[in-house]
Amino acid sequence: MNSFGRIFRVSIFGESHGESAGINIDGCPAGLSLSVEDFLEDIERRKGGTQKGTTPRKEDDLPIFKSGVFNGKTTGAPITILFENKNTRSGDYEKQRAVPRPGHADFVAHAKFGGFEDFRGGGHFSGRLTVCLVAAGVIAKKLLAQVDLSPGMAANDTGIKVTATILEIGGETDLEKGLQKAIDHKDSIGGIVECRTNGLPVGLGEPFFDSVESVISHAVFAIPAIRGIEFGTGFAAARMYGVDHNDVIEDKAGKTKTNHAGGVVGGITNGNELVFRIAVKPTSSTPKEQITLNWETNEVEPFSVKGRHDLCIALRVPVVLEAVTAMVLADLLLLEHHIRRIL
Amino acid sequence: MNSFGRIFRVSIFGESHGESAGINIDGCPAGLSLSVEDFLEDIERRKGGTQKGTTPRKEDDLPIFKSGVFNGKTTGAPITILFENKNTRSGDYEKQRAVPRPGHADFVAHAKFGGFEDFRGGGHFSGRLTVCLVAAGVIAKKLLAQVDLSPGMAANDTGIKVTATILEIGGETDLEKGLQKAIDHKDSIGGIVECRTNGLPVGLGEPFFDSVESVISHAVFAIPAIRGIEFGTGFAAARMYGVDHNDVIEDKAGKTKTNHAGGVVGGITNGNELVFRIAVKPTSSTPKEQITLNWETNEVEPFSVKGRHDLCIALRVPVVLEAVTAMVLADLLLLEHHIRRIL
Amino acid sequence: MNSFGRIFRVSIFGESHGESAGINIDGCPAGLSLSVEDFLEDIERRKGGTQKGTTPRKEDDLPIFKSGVFNGKTTGAPITILFENKNTRSGDYEKQRAVPRPGHADFVAHAKFGGFEDFRGGGHFSGRLTVCLVAAGVIAKKLLAQVDLSPGMAANDTGIKVTATILEIGGETDLEKGLQKAIDHKDSIGGIVECRTNGLPVGLGEPFFDSVESVISHAVFAIPAIRGIEFGTGFAAARMYGVDHNDVIEDKAGKTKTNHAGGVVGGITNGNELVFRIAVKPTSSTPKEQITLNWETNEVEPFSVKGRHDLCIALRVPVVLEAVTAMVLADLLLLEHHIRRIL
Amino acid sequence: MNSFGRIFRVSIFGESHGESAGINIDGCPAGLSLSVEDFLEDIERRKGGTQKGTTPRKEDDLPIFKSGVFNGKTTGAPITILFENKNTRSGDYEKQRAVPRPGHADFVAHAKFGGFEDFRGGGHFSGRLTVCLVAAGVIAKKLLAQVDLSPGMAANDTGIKVTATILEIGGETDLEKGLQKAIDHKDSIGGIVECRTNGLPVGLGEPFFDSVESVISHAVFAIPAIRGIEFGTGFAAARMYGVDHNDVIEDKAGKTKTNHAGGVVGGITNGNELVFRIAVKPTSSTPKEQITLNWETNEVEPFSVKGRHDLCIALRVPVVLEAVTAMVLADLLLLEHHIRRIL
Repeated sequence: MNSFGRIFRVSIFGESHGESAGINIDGCPAGLSLSVEDFLEDIERRKGGTQKGTTPRKEDDLPIFKSGVFNGKTTGAPITILFENKNTRSGDYEKQRAVPRPGHADFVAHAKFGGFEDFRGGGHFSGRLTVCLVAAGVIAKKLLAQVDLSPGMAANDTGIKVTATILEIGGETDLEKGLQKAIDHKDSIGGIVECRTNGLPVGLGEPFFDSVESVISHAVFAIPAIRGIEFGTGFAAARMYGVDHNDVIEDKAGKTKTNHAGGVVGGITNGNELVFRIAVKPTSSTPKEQITLNWETNEVEPFSVKGRHDLCIALRVPVVLEAVTAMVLADLLLLEHHIRRIL
Repeated sequence: MNSFGRIFRVSIFGESHGESAGINIDGCPAGLSLSVEDFLEDIERRKGGTQKGTTPRKEDDLPIFKSGVFNGKTTGAPITILFENKNTRSGDYEKQRAVPRPGHADFVAHAKFGGFEDFRGGGHFSGRLTVCLVAAGVIAKKLLAQVDLSPGMAANDTGIKVTATILEIGGETDLEKGLQKAIDHKDSIGGIVECRTNGLPVGLGEPFFDSVESVISHAVFAIPAIRGIEFGTGFAAARMYGVDHNDVIEDKAGKTKTNHAGGVVGGITNGNELVFRIAVKPTSSTPKEQITLNWETNEVEPFSVKGRHDLCIALRVPVVLEAVTAMVLADLLLLEHHIRRIL
Repeated sequence: MNSFGRIFRVSIFGESHGESAGINIDGCPAGLSLSVEDFLEDIERRKGGTQKGTTPRKEDDLPIFKSGVFNGKTTGAPITILFENKNTRSGDYEKQRAVPRPGHADFVAHAKFGGFEDFRGGGHFSGRLTVCLVAAGVIAKKLLAQVDLSPGMAANDTGIKVTATILEIGGETDLEKGLQKAIDHKDSIGGIVECRTNGLPVGLGEPFFDSVESVISHAVFAIPAIRGIEFGTGFAAARMYGVDHNDVIEDKAGKTKTNHAGGVVGGITNGNELVFRIAVKPTSSTPKEQITLNWETNEVEPFSVKGRHDLCIALRVPVVLEAVTAMVLADLLLLEHHIRRIL
Repeated sequence: MNSFGRIFRVSIFGESHGESAGINIDGCPAGLSLSVEDFLEDIERRKGGTQKGTTPRKEDDLPIFKSGVFNGKTTGAPITILFENKNTRSGDYEKQRAVPRPGHADFVAHAKFGGFEDFRGGGHFSGRLTVCLVAAGVIAKKLLAQVDLSPGMAANDTGIKVTATILEIGGETDLEKGLQKAIDHKDSIGGIVECRTNGLPVGLGEPFFDSVESVISHAVFAIPAIRGIEFGTGFAAARMYGVDHNDVIEDKAGKTKTNHAGGVVGGITNGNELVFRIAVKPTSSTPKEQITLNWETNEVEPFSVKGRHDLCIALRVPVVLEAVTAMVLADLLLLEHHIRRIL
């Protein structure tokens, strides 16, 4: 299923080189102001072409509202937003139909959909669809700013803020240096991105299957190229002693002295900063020559990537990571009645 | 929601010191033989008390079938299994009601459920409920052995096998050594567990929201004490170059030379071994004295854990990890028609 | 799936002659007082044996809480309730295994579950499981009394009240007379039951797929033996002119002069009484001799019902109809924030 | 939620006088040929303007594929289809903003969405969106023709056929006569529509909550203006004796002598014709003068419908009824593996 969320339910559709990519959001409260301008900053952050290491492919990527917005505000009915694909060069891909690109979904898509898949540029599997996630994130972030956390549900001044930043490129915390390594090696490279959310109330999430970690990680692994996720101290916790890992609760609001738990205990937010990190693999489309199977000849043969690609896809991930995180949190806040169904 | 799965749908319920813990499974195919004996090995593996570092609390933990099994076989109707709680010492916990235990869900449960939660031994948040997951896993594993992968859907000899093992305790691959560190420090300790699954077909999972990584991680974070998950090369991929990370496809079955992807590309299984690792935090209940808030006095005060606990909860995790993995895979296989609805 | 509801989610399980029938409710707010006594009246209303035309089979039918209730109140964790089957005579049914009873699910159950179904007394298809629905209804009705409809969400004095009554037995509004017809004919007989709900707010339900009529009828057809449902004026509306059918809105609260719509317009409650009627078929198990196929001989042969049965199952339907209606409404009220998640 | 279905999942969006109405279908098997031509006949059947009693509003209503179709076939990715709104006269509606039209959703929409709803022509509540349902139905019907019911899952020649016909207009089985009554009365009028499906296998549906009647009626009440539904003998069953109502099973395929059950027993299809009828209310927009509340003056005042409307909406219902029925059946057949995920 290409949908996620219980109340704020997001569905994505489209293909890299088809007519469009798009998103449908059901369950967004009525009365949220929404204009094309709201989307520009985050769409710009996601775009390639503005920094070294990202693809020169450019799309205007202006959101086209097809439903659910009237007089500049959400109506409570499903919101549909399209992004047109204008700047495609499908010919690049059609030539390579017989050769499943290493690291890409070509092979599995062919097997899963019996050869009927749109194979151009990865088709429905393309990172192109993350523009849809970003759009959902823009709306979700606007909802997070409307959240109402006081006991009497009076207005909250600050709202909830989700911020993702790159921690490492190719193992380097000096990101320029990491990127230069890739350029020097004429190869793509991976990275680590961290997401921090402030202002969350205690009590989001459920024990067991709908733990905050469960729903966040479910959404995060919808982003292509993610290899791992860790909350709070994460994998390092596996080497710690209990007394060092446990966070001392200091006041009735639940504030803890340390935050090894990353803001989630027993699957439930504990009122501290929500912190998690993800590992992004190196872009599968590397400039380096590779080898792969040729389906027609049944031989393994040399293979060179055509088309325009990012050296380091991690550079474009932060805004997408913020988006899926905001989307999950908006859903949890609606479930707990911290966001009203009519704003 | 305490449920998970689209076809093979598992719901858990119960409390640590209530009358019982239990599980309901809807969507299990009819005709699967099922007896108490099928459960004994995995329940035994989960139990504490048999190795150093695990809790001396013992339960018989015999599954009691309440519905869905008739003449030793599943009927296709929902299966309900209860585990009675016999060996509880609730008094241990009632004394400490005013003191939310560090690292435990006491604080968040109180906030989320307004003080109405069953607080004894963690109540519904307790690791006690993992016995329910193990039971679901036993059934799911039996289904995986029935899987039918040949093109004509003829019987498959070997089936699918899920195996989890401990890789590290407290940073030591010599596990005895890691455990001894905890004993020497009189503290609890964390660990790393790996899960490998063989025999999977190409094509399970969906692009984006229902990627295999999404649904596996969703289920995995339902296990208490998990801090992170990584697939294939995982976090190390963030420091790799593309040409080194990409797995070369070698034959038409999709076999790859390396398995950095961990058996999943584009969210879909690629026919190679499914591999992932999880980080388990040190048991929150450490023998060491700690400090925490006292709700009544509003003061931070010293705190000592009562009750019986594991020094290293990671020791009990492998069978639970296998269980949730098998549960997810059974669901994906049913969705793709690789397991029939009547066996 | 044996589950229903988005927030207040009810799952049923069990068999007529198995160990038990039971129910699991996930999403019930914490803090609702709940005792065995709360269930007695509705369980008594559902029971046979107290009026002519109902089965002499008697069960104590005391609800046994297995999870989710602590110190007499709901905890917010899933509630599991069992009803034990004590008074069964399975032998009656086993003799007739080769003969699918007309009007019963024997034939379809055998086909659907490949012969693995529990066939005793209808197994999982039995009306016995309506005791589970009644239990869910008891809890839902208690929630409806807690509803909070004023703009400031202050307490509401009266709450929402669901009442179902029998309108007709065998076409007679004098019910004794209708029942006597059945007794005189030595045959079973059908009836019509009406459900009215007062106190509902405007705005429950959704346009199209989650219209109030959609979700109510979905739940209502879960009750065995229902052949039809109509809202407001119902089938008679098909013979009316528009100006006669349209309900004139008279005030800002939405009160209408007539109620041909039955309280739902565009799928959404309009603040008037919710009214619908259902048709209940005659009990399939009639005292009259019938004919049916014998699977073993492949001949159609005479057949006489064994066991204890109701002449008119409609007599037992009202409390079950109230239950599923209350269950649906509790869910819709939770979705719209008219019932708080902590009471 | 504006979505329905477990495997073949349909979501609708759009407004009557907004930019478009549309549909998203997730879970459609890959490899189904699909062209604009496939839709023309059913879209034409739904359209007004071609017979007396239907609205003169005309739309080209050509489906525009936005995703999920490649080289004339479905890809297995979500299918998005838009219908543009070209022929709107919103001014007609804006003048009447202060006056909730009797029988329409204006009042409830305003209450539910806080005045943010798109009120033009009923907005998201409009019957305009049934064109989306018809589109889903076209695809579902093509799937039903692909169904594979033999034990070895070999090709089936005939497939499954869904046919809806009008039984009555204004109580007259001579439909011209019924329509003339409405024209003579200068008023709108209701009708009854019957749906029959042949070729279904035994075993679709589930006991209780996902009974065939439950899921069919859920989908049917998504069609605006429906007041009731009855299966088989329906409401008349409430006046029958058991021996007359029970259908005698005559052979091992489950064929019954009569079909009072309408093809469903215990919630499960029994291999006989699936038969149900629905009641359609008279069009709310009648040419007759009515009275209703004026929100601004708080007075009840005379009201005359503007815009273009059908005298008898039942005339346009059959193709929509076929569509939702086909949609539900395609989903159930996919669940039971009677339709393959790759065609």
